[in-house]
Amino acid sequence: MILQFKSGTSEEILLKVEQKLATEGIRSVRSSETHRPILAAVDSVSPTLLQEIFDTTDELERIVTPEGPWKQVDRSFREGPTIVEIGDLKIGEGQPCAIIGGPCSVEGRAPVLEVANEVQAAGAHMLRGGAFKPRTSPYAFQGYGVEGLRQLKDAGEAVGLPVVSEIMDASHLPAFLDVDIDCLQIGARNMQNFTLLKAVGKAGIPVLLKRGLSATVKEWLLAAEYLMAGGCEQIMLCERGIRTFETATRNTLDLTVLPLLRQWTHLPIVVDPAHAAGIANIIPTLARASVAAGADGITVEVHLDPKRARSDGPQALSPGDLKRIVAEARIISALF
Amino acid sequence: MILQFKSGTSEEILLKVEQKLATEGIRSVRSSETHRPILAAVDSVSPTLLQEIFDTTDELERIVTPEGPWKQVDRSFREGPTIVEIGDLKIGEGQPCAIIGGPCSVEGRAPVLEVANEVQAAGAHMLRGGAFKPRTSPYAFQGYGVEGLRQLKDAGEAVGLPVVSEIMDASHLPAFLDVDIDCLQIGARNMQNFTLLKAVGKAGIPVLLKRGLSATVKEWLLAAEYLMAGGCEQIMLCERGIRTFETATRNTLDLTVLPLLRQWTHLPIVVDPAHAAGIANIIPTLARASVAAGADGITVEVHLDPKRARSDGPQALSPGDLKRIVAEARIISALF
Amino acid sequence: MILQFKSGTSEEILLKVEQKLATEGIRSVRSSETHRPILAAVDSVSPTLLQEIFDTTDELERIVTPEGPWKQVDRSFREGPTIVEIGDLKIGEGQPCAIIGGPCSVEGRAPVLEVANEVQAAGAHMLRGGAFKPRTSPYAFQGYGVEGLRQLKDAGEAVGLPVVSEIMDASHLPAFLDVDIDCLQIGARNMQNFTLLKAVGKAGIPVLLKRGLSATVKEWLLAAEYLMAGGCEQIMLCERGIRTFETATRNTLDLTVLPLLRQWTHLPIVVDPAHAAGIANIIPTLARASVAAGADGITVEVHLDPKRARSDGPQALSPGDLKRIVAEARIISALF
Amino acid sequence: MILQFKSGTSEEILLKVEQKLATEGIRSVRSSETHRPILAAVDSVSPTLLQEIFDTTDELERIVTPEGPWKQVDRSFREGPTIVEIGDLKIGEGQPCAIIGGPCSVEGRAPVLEVANEVQAAGAHMLRGGAFKPRTSPYAFQGYGVEGLRQLKDAGEAVGLPVVSEIMDASHLPAFLDVDIDCLQIGARNMQNFTLLKAVGKAGIPVLLKRGLSATVKEWLLAAEYLMAGGCEQIMLCERGIRTFETATRNTLDLTVLPLLRQWTHLPIVVDPAHAAGIANIIPTLARASVAAGADGITVEVHLDPKRARSDGPQALSPGDLKRIVAEARIISALF
Repeated sequence: MILQFKSGTSEEILLKVEQKLATEGIRSVRSSETHRPILAAVDSVSPTLLQEIFDTTDELERIVTPEGPWKQVDRSFREGPTIVEIGDLKIGEGQPCAIIGGPCSVEGRAPVLEVANEVQAAGAHMLRGGAFKPRTSPYAFQGYGVEGLRQLKDAGEAVGLPVVSEIMDASHLPAFLDVDIDCLQIGARNMQNFTLLKAVGKAGIPVLLKRGLSATVKEWLLAAEYLMAGGCEQIMLCERGIRTFETATRNTLDLTVLPLLRQWTHLPIVVDPAHAAGIANIIPTLARASVAAGADGITVEVHLDPKRARSDGPQALSPGDLKRIVAEARIISALF
Repeated sequence: MILQFKSGTSEEILLKVEQKLATEGIRSVRSSETHRPILAAVDSVSPTLLQEIFDTTDELERIVTPEGPWKQVDRSFREGPTIVEIGDLKIGEGQPCAIIGGPCSVEGRAPVLEVANEVQAAGAHMLRGGAFKPRTSPYAFQGYGVEGLRQLKDAGEAVGLPVVSEIMDASHLPAFLDVDIDCLQIGARNMQNFTLLKAVGKAGIPVLLKRGLSATVKEWLLAAEYLMAGGCEQIMLCERGIRTFETATRNTLDLTVLPLLRQWTHLPIVVDPAHAAGIANIIPTLARASVAAGADGITVEVHLDPKRARSDGPQALSPGDLKRIVAEARIISALF
Repeated sequence: MILQFKSGTSEEILLKVEQKLATEGIRSVRSSETHRPILAAVDSVSPTLLQEIFDTTDELERIVTPEGPWKQVDRSFREGPTIVEIGDLKIGEGQPCAIIGGPCSVEGRAPVLEVANEVQAAGAHMLRGGAFKPRTSPYAFQGYGVEGLRQLKDAGEAVGLPVVSEIMDASHLPAFLDVDIDCLQIGARNMQNFTLLKAVGKAGIPVLLKRGLSATVKEWLLAAEYLMAGGCEQIMLCERGIRTFETATRNTLDLTVLPLLRQWTHLPIVVDPAHAAGIANIIPTLARASVAAGADGITVEVHLDPKRARSDGPQALSPGDLKRIVAEARIISALF
Repeated sequence: MILQFKSGTSEEILLKVEQKLATEGIRSVRSSETHRPILAAVDSVSPTLLQEIFDTTDELERIVTPEGPWKQVDRSFREGPTIVEIGDLKIGEGQPCAIIGGPCSVEGRAPVLEVANEVQAAGAHMLRGGAFKPRTSPYAFQGYGVEGLRQLKDAGEAVGLPVVSEIMDASHLPAFLDVDIDCLQIGARNMQNFTLLKAVGKAGIPVLLKRGLSATVKEWLLAAEYLMAGGCEQIMLCERGIRTFETATRNTLDLTVLPLLRQWTHLPIVVDPAHAAGIANIIPTLARASVAAGADGITVEVHLDPKRARSDGPQALSPGDLKRIVAEARIISALF
């Protein structure tokens, strides 16, 4: 239950309400929203108690019951949409669609710099690249680790783009902080790695939270709630396709939930059409559809020679494709 | 295997090839394409036989192996995209996106006329309405049958729009022909009702073929192949959401397959975002995304008083929503 | 809502209650149960009306609200389990597990007789065989139709077994009646072919109703409700695997719902492990697990030379496998 | 590719083959099987190279290509089934079915001891209990951590049963080792937590590896391969229901894959019917079906007062249910 107070409600009244809740064993958390005080009651509030709170004050303006068991990620926990800021880049509702591009895996200092140059030239806004790779087989290339992180960051700095990279384990966090990675990606397979979510929530860096392969919207928003419960407010949800019976494509991109998420949460929504498709030549069209569905950002994999990619080659785009995505996103983004 | 011959290849050579195939027990079918002769070998052709055919003639220009077991619906079985023509309305690749609107069920002469007026005023291109309703429960409203068909057709004529209505059983076909319904819809639950497919394929009327609730693209294209094998060439494929684990929406709209279908088949693709969503207020955004993904048409349900709808009220749009969909489809359709 | 009256409640009282309901526009239906009168209210009954009914009589013993929107198939609509009787064969809770075997398709008079002999020798209780075949591709073998039905029935009579065969369309029903087929099978793809369900419900023959490829238990029970609403009481539900993301097996056999169905419905439950598995050598083990899960019957495909089968060869069993299934079913069936 | 050598093949020949492979850049690993030497080539081997190896020696008896990309978990990598040994308890093909029971969460010293007594009295073989709990919501009870581990172990020792508990993060491993937990459980949500798999693979303790919510058999076996690649040989695969469209049950227990796993891998298979069902009163029947499908072990949750359970109460069994499961497993286990 979210309690929205009138703008200018005194700290005294808020404390009273918080105490009232605490006395009944109900945990509450305060929004960082500055336009007006907003409180989320974490545990369930009985109608009687709610009446008592109403009787205490007439500063309580509106009570919102979220559509699911989440609290802080609910649309009503903030006055407007969350805008994630990474350097000068702003991602969220009302902002131009942000394009993130880069190699699936960082494959060395020279290759990543080369791709970075193309990504920047294509007009994209952030550089991506995997250094710690979650691979289905233990015998597959596992990424260059810390060294790869450093190469990615250097490439980003060289072309003037912030960088995002996947973190697979809480114990790797110091390395990400050390290299000054601009945004942490939590992968689909780790969406419910709760130890990781708790650690990353406290890291003070923006997070790109991918949806799990078969995660419901409810589970996904609760994973984001773990991050917010840890103190992180700069979170982007990333739809990347869900697992269904259909095998013609690698996964099924679930754009159906985008307009729903817009209503349910204040968090920005990014779409990764590449992992959903698994086939390079349909990705630009899916990117376009994603922007039309309301995506605040698009993330894709770019490789200068997809056939030689050390991972996910079949879904890697050329710099030309990326340029097309940037252009089409700009057009559609401006329309609606 | 699709055999594309040079333009101007003589009938004699074609007959020779067909005979060659027949001798080996291989069924073949000829495309109605006029730019050049195209043959589909229905059964599998051995490399040896293929070589023999090559040796027979140098008019055979190109051999295409479809991505799946379908033949006539394959992109290569025609020179360009199939354009479905219903009166003056043209639906298919390169045409403006066609908008189909109307009530879920025809609910009487006056109501359907009222909706028809709004649908026409909103700028939509075809009127839809169910007279035979496939309902999960035997106790639910089953539609007005033939009487409803007549009311729908009359409403369409009154406002100058062609009409489409669902046919549930082969035995109802005479009634649809009698009323002169412009387009037959085969519903998701009947996508693999093969007796129905065979009958409808011979009816000589355009068909809107909905994808089954859990039909793969392969099964869907083979259902369309049943129609083509019966002689029907005017077929629209209609994506309407697939069944997945996600329960936040009624189904999951599978836009991922749209650009793939564009590559695999010459048939037009229509999207029904309403049955996928199940929630009215996210439908216009999904319609927009569908057009951006390449939809040649959009079909939605419109009701003047959704709360009183006799079926599918929660996903019925207002005439205002329909107007918005028409406008946005026009804009995006023109862009790409 | 199901109303169970005390044994011996007078016809007068029942008529009064039925009238009361009818006056409020509520349809009701009476159970054929002989131990006590049972009524199902088809439409929803308000608490006020329920109280009024209670006030009318003290013969109303128990009110049951089914777990879903079904009525007549609910466990509470009968005193005990439904036992389907086909000749001397009895299928249902408390009866020995019935084994149904036979070819996927009837492939001629001699072959089906040959298989029938083996099926009978293996100790199975019913002969199956497809004459009208629902095939994904229009170019695949579609079955021998009426001729095949006749061959199947003759084979059954020759070896003394009742026969079951799939009916694909309402218009074929006279042929099935003409040949005196003992049990009609409604296939997975036709589970929601409502025209077929209505026709078959009135045919007066036992029905084996397969679960749709992605049908929920609710939809499946409502399909059975269509049959009961038509007058058919001799219905067997047949679980045959559902469509999931897993591709190692053809489908996923959903044994999880068996004990649930036992609680929810009085109808017998048959399992078809073959279509779920799609691989012959795992079928006997799955049959055994099905019986342990409570299956009242098992249906499998048997072929004397699986590699030459005209359909579904990879999942056809040998007579030896069938013998093993009969034996193991007998043992487990006797245990619990 | 798995290379099985004749029993008694000399170390010299093995080294030669390994060197040959290494020269071509092909990694290989040797089975711990004692009856005969077995090598797995991790990378793909060309037919030419294979021929060269054959020419080198006639001690190479049989070459097996696994059904998927796994190596060490393949059935052919050992002579017979792997038997996991935990104290005197033996789990695997040919052994009596092992029953694992205990509370979902350890809820304190006294409660866990109380349950342990019942579990032991019911005839079960191992005690389970969660101390680190993966919870969908950050506000839900997260378990008692290390303290809970200690209480579980003490309870196990008091009643003479080994204990198994879920590990959620590699950093917690020292605590599990310190308390001397007998078996580590990797939960469904962590099946592809590769950092965890690598750490646990080196811990030297038996592992119960749950299948991910939507993990294919291939991904699941590759997760086990991570463990084996780390040096762990004592692995049990645990089927616990997969995520499907069906909502009548919490998940769908996939028994279809059990007989397939038996053919594909030498590892023991345990089934957790409780998380699949989510409803207590259908669990014993599912346990029985699981044993009939070939399960080497069953794991269920037991609580003395399910309504007061701090997690997963609706699927907790009573000690009486557990007793029934133990008895029925014994009977069926002995039959086949």
